[in-house]
Amino acid sequence: MEMNKQCIKNHSEGMRMKADIADIAIIGGGPAGLSAALNGIARGKSVRVFSAPGNYLERAEKINNYLGMEAVSGKEMMQRFRDQVQSAGVKIEPGRVLSVMPLGERFMVAFNSDVVEARTVILASGAARQKEISGETEFLGRGVSYCATCDGMLYRGKRAIVCGEADDLVAEANFLQQIGVEVTLVSSKQRPKELADGVTFCQDRLLAVRGSRSVEAVDLQQGTIATDAVFILHNSLLPALLLPGLETKKGFIQVSRQQETNIAGVFASGDCCGMPLQIAKAVGEGLVAAQQAAKYIDDQKK
Amino acid sequence: MEMNKQCIKNHSEGMRMKADIADIAIIGGGPAGLSAALNGIARGKSVRVFSAPGNYLERAEKINNYLGMEAVSGKEMMQRFRDQVQSAGVKIEPGRVLSVMPLGERFMVAFNSDVVEARTVILASGAARQKEISGETEFLGRGVSYCATCDGMLYRGKRAIVCGEADDLVAEANFLQQIGVEVTLVSSKQRPKELADGVTFCQDRLLAVRGSRSVEAVDLQQGTIATDAVFILHNSLLPALLLPGLETKKGFIQVSRQQETNIAGVFASGDCCGMPLQIAKAVGEGLVAAQQAAKYIDDQKK
Repeated sequence: MEMNKQCIKNHSEGMRMKADIADIAIIGGGPAGLSAALNGIARGKSVRVFSAPGNYLERAEKINNYLGMEAVSGKEMMQRFRDQVQSAGVKIEPGRVLSVMPLGERFMVAFNSDVVEARTVILASGAARQKEISGETEFLGRGVSYCATCDGMLYRGKRAIVCGEADDLVAEANFLQQIGVEVTLVSSKQRPKELADGVTFCQDRLLAVRGSRSVEAVDLQQGTIATDAVFILHNSLLPALLLPGLETKKGFIQVSRQQETNIAGVFASGDCCGMPLQIAKAVGEGLVAAQQAAKYIDDQKK
Repeated sequence: MEMNKQCIKNHSEGMRMKADIADIAIIGGGPAGLSAALNGIARGKSVRVFSAPGNYLERAEKINNYLGMEAVSGKEMMQRFRDQVQSAGVKIEPGRVLSVMPLGERFMVAFNSDVVEARTVILASGAARQKEISGETEFLGRGVSYCATCDGMLYRGKRAIVCGEADDLVAEANFLQQIGVEVTLVSSKQRPKELADGVTFCQDRLLAVRGSRSVEAVDLQQGTIATDAVFILHNSLLPALLLPGLETKKGFIQVSRQQETNIAGVFASGDCCGMPLQIAKAVGEGLVAAQQAAKYIDDQKK
């Protein structure tokens, strides 16, 4: 729990606490999250959808096995899903959720530079494929960060490594460089064309984060680089890192048939709950999660 | 199991045994069954979809909570689902499944007057809302029947009671009368206009089936009528009557998160698995059931 508190603390710099509490905070803007939003609204609940960049469905060329939509591209499908949900009154907010912390009967959700309060949480963050890097959890909030927008200002005039597979990796590296951070981008691919000239590029792979009280260096395959910070940017965060204490198995959230996790008030749906990683399953589970969350809220009020 | 064998035996009169075995027999042509069919085909399996008359979704005026289809009527949604599945090569076969019997590593499915062989079965028969009538199970195959088309000929020149809430109730009563059965239709509603003149009508409710070796009479609220047969016609059969030994709870089939029932090779999806009775959930579960059935078949062949 310690790292999570630290995380919330970090983000309280310049945080704007919202006066209104959302009934359901939905983490993820893919099929599971959007189906949950549509059905939360249908049950008269207020919902907020936090959508991280990058959804592998967008890259699917043709989808033929979702009932109701024949031979559409992933991009088209997602666009239609978003249009439908938005016309039902749902606002999809782009950005990263960094942590979720239970606080009494509510939840504090660190989203970009805000802390959002919610009665229930639906995790629909997709399949997190990455492996945890040695030292990642140990130094989270002490030099390791998952969000350049959120923590960038803390490292002005200091050195930072940026790595990960996020779709906005280059944009985030450029942003850090612009605000005055001394940035090195580590990637196994070629130097991206869009990368700002001022950013150092290193074609390598991150193996470990090291330090004492805070981050001091990273180990790459070809050697060690001294640094003050490491921004590890994923499209979706490992659920167990998002919400400590959450029961997972091989990286997937353990849920009941009612999409309940082991934490009361926290539900999960879609790819983050395990195989098969399929749209129809995600949409179905999103509905069940939303209806259970609505029921949970109603039961609390009794 | 006895009644099921009896049922299969009854239907073997004039039965046409199919030489080819279906990989997946899908019982139900609603959203769960059609999603299972679409995904069975997508996994390269041969599927057969047995669809009983009457689907309460067809009566829904407007559906707003299924991702991908905005504000459509239930009728339109089902038509589009059917079109999509049929254009993927699935044949939807109208009629009633009366029983499913495991036979070694395969299943015998009594469908209309046929017996169909299948490697796996997906139950997607919807929510069965009816209560079992006293004596119903006891006399099944000994005067009680769920299918006029199948068993009608056995009662030519004899007396039969027809009751139930099936959409084709009147058509079935008329059919029995045409083939020479002395028919009494029992219904709590008014005499239906379409009912053939030769059919006796009785506005009442069936309470019990009585007899010794076979059916001899039925108890109604207003009295007792002697009869040789009772046709109880439901849109969907109670799962436990369809497949004895199937684990159910309050009428719903108990399944794992992988849509497995307690019987190996038998999967279930949609409303027959329990609340919430929703399209998105049914479609998602149909997909999972089909993929598990495909996996089961592949594992058997190893």
